[in-house]
Amino acid sequence: RRGRLAAHGHSVFAEMSALAEQHDAINLGQGFPDTAGPDAIVEAAVRALRAGHHQYPPVPGLPGLRRAIADHQRHRYGLDIDPDRETVVTTGASEALAAALLALTTPGDEIVALEPFYDSYAACATLAGATLVPVRLHAPDFTLDTRELAAAITERTRILLLNTPHNPTGAVLASEQLHEVAALARAHDLLVISDEVYEHLVFEGTHQPIAALPGMFERTVTISSAGKSFSFTGWKVGWATGPADLVTAVREVKQHLSFAGGTPFQHAVADALRLPEEYFTAATDSLRRRRDLMTDGLRAVGFAVRPPRGTYFITADITPLGERDGMDFCRALPSRCGVAAIPHQVFYADPDAGRRYVRFAFCKRESVLHQALERLEKGL
Amino acid sequence: RRGRLAAHGHSVFAEMSALAEQHDAINLGQGFPDTAGPDAIVEAAVRALRAGHHQYPPVPGLPGLRRAIADHQRHRYGLDIDPDRETVVTTGASEALAAALLALTTPGDEIVALEPFYDSYAACATLAGATLVPVRLHAPDFTLDTRELAAAITERTRILLLNTPHNPTGAVLASEQLHEVAALARAHDLLVISDEVYEHLVFEGTHQPIAALPGMFERTVTISSAGKSFSFTGWKVGWATGPADLVTAVREVKQHLSFAGGTPFQHAVADALRLPEEYFTAATDSLRRRRDLMTDGLRAVGFAVRPPRGTYFITADITPLGERDGMDFCRALPSRCGVAAIPHQVFYADPDAGRRYVRFAFCKRESVLHQALERLEKGL
Ligand SMILES: CSCCC(=O)C(=O)O
Ligand SMILES: CSCCC(=O)C(=O)O
Repeated sequence: RRGRLAAHGHSVFAEMSALAEQHDAINLGQGFPDTAGPDAIVEAAVRALRAGHHQYPPVPGLPGLRRAIADHQRHRYGLDIDPDRETVVTTGASEALAAALLALTTPGDEIVALEPFYDSYAACATLAGATLVPVRLHAPDFTLDTRELAAAITERTRILLLNTPHNPTGAVLASEQLHEVAALARAHDLLVISDEVYEHLVFEGTHQPIAALPGMFERTVTISSAGKSFSFTGWKVGWATGPADLVTAVREVKQHLSFAGGTPFQHAVADALRLPEEYFTAATDSLRRRRDLMTDGLRAVGFAVRPPRGTYFITADITPLGERDGMDFCRALPSRCGVAAIPHQVFYADPDAGRRYVRFAFCKRESVLHQALERLEKGL
Repeated sequence: RRGRLAAHGHSVFAEMSALAEQHDAINLGQGFPDTAGPDAIVEAAVRALRAGHHQYPPVPGLPGLRRAIADHQRHRYGLDIDPDRETVVTTGASEALAAALLALTTPGDEIVALEPFYDSYAACATLAGATLVPVRLHAPDFTLDTRELAAAITERTRILLLNTPHNPTGAVLASEQLHEVAALARAHDLLVISDEVYEHLVFEGTHQPIAALPGMFERTVTISSAGKSFSFTGWKVGWATGPADLVTAVREVKQHLSFAGGTPFQHAVADALRLPEEYFTAATDSLRRRRDLMTDGLRAVGFAVRPPRGTYFITADITPLGERDGMDFCRALPSRCGVAAIPHQVFYADPDAGRRYVRFAFCKRESVLHQALERLEKGL
């Protein structure tokens, strides 16, 4: 194997999806819904296509989309963002993350992140020549001990990379903890990159952006996307918001990663962000029902499960089933049961950690989830 | 200014587009056509949208698109590429370039590139911690002296970054020169990243990919895209092809830059690559007419101009007009004449080089080009 990321190993998402296909399994691995977002938004994209919006958008994104992003954040979170200087549209949240980490670190910097963490965090740190310093969340509810976060900060720490609602655990940082994290960032003069791509998938209370806390906007790049919020993961429209100096730095990197694209989708996502509150409520309600269905169902099968507070992922402890290794378990699951899941192990820096956990995505139709549960019941 | 790319300055494309808008000027700066690609391809995207192709494609790209890329290269260039292992779809050629440079260099490496060069080359080298070593093309036809290329190679050289047809000059490397460059790559065991995004915009003879030369496929990553070939720059569907080990390394980086997206556009571009030969011939013929129109027109205005052999850019020497500085000239041009262009200076490592040249994009309707020429005639 060659290349700068050779040491990062292959993608477990690709491996599990290939196994799912091979065994005609229900794929509860990678997080994408099996139902698209609203027809009206699809038709907005069709209109933009037929209207001839085929060339590059402006590098920071279409003005109408940037206004919609700012209005959405004002309306939901009381944040007052200048659409021109404080937003940049990206090729999904992935690119916003890559661009922010490349832009705002220098080689040798340390990036403190919650562990388990989405695999791109470590890969982007490597691309940036920076070191990811993990702070482990604690089972069973994957809670953060902010004293451990404080202990992980050194004089080389440059960035707190936050993710709440949290992938893969579904944990949501409690408000007091968010305040404690913010206090640490201010005390150590750290930048915060806050991956809030699951901001609309919160089952109890409402999402709270760290950028809205006192003294935080000026040091925070907040990342979100249309893919998870509106069920168009393949459109890859995301964004970063924050103070002009940070957003400019992110935009300058993003410009050389992919320049600017997705023009017809940018038109449609501007409409999506202006959907009425009922849309978001209904989407969350539907997802909450499916979360409960999966929580109960996986328990009945014999997993130890706690209901996640956010995201569309649920973490299951396999040890009550007499299983020891999530990777082995997930590699066998498609042929054994006709279901695919993701082992937690790939989300840890320490390859021995997270062995007992696997992650199921529940952003699928209820009938599909029922079928998956039946298959697990039968096969395990 | 902060951020890893702060030293790279702002984007002259954005500056000139803003001036164009402010003065209601005809924008011959950034390279995007004012006419979209074939309706049938737009409708293929509409069909994909309405068929519900809204979630992530596979990370390497849709199988159907990868087959179309391989078939296209077999049919046009006699290259025999395995669609599964030797192609990866990217967010435009930009992302393919960024991913290839990040993947295939280590910090401290040298990348030899033709100068003038598209601004992302230097920015991506910086992101990779590598050094761009420019080899200047020589006026008036921007020809390469391969002895100078040979002299630029050191023991730290890792990559020859080639671009033919060449942006911004419109030069096309002659076949003997391509063979000489290939011989140098083999002799020094270098990798080649070959940006062939203008492969279909060649006015004399046919495009020749360096990967087709003996001993070259195994060391070459070839980059192209649908944006320039089919006039859908805002769709951002590009690709890299090459031997499996290099393409895998590129894919592993790209996966963490933007993951995978543009699903409906990937469906449509698979159709575009299967358009009959007449489509490509007609597109080139139409562009050749516009090249000739601009060559004659700019000469009549008083610029010194040579007809480019490829791309949709034409380079004009401003000194016969009594002008000395392309940047000053281009900054004044929108208000002075109602036309926007790009100064060559931004494509050189040496800020004093390229002063006498400016670049006009001629991928616009003939009526628009006539109007631009009239405005230049009147204003200069
Ligand atoms: C670009 S993939 C984003 C994360 C996700 O979908 C997953 O963790 O499964
Ligand atoms: C992503 S921009 C590609 C190059 C181009 O269009 C230009 O040089 O104007």
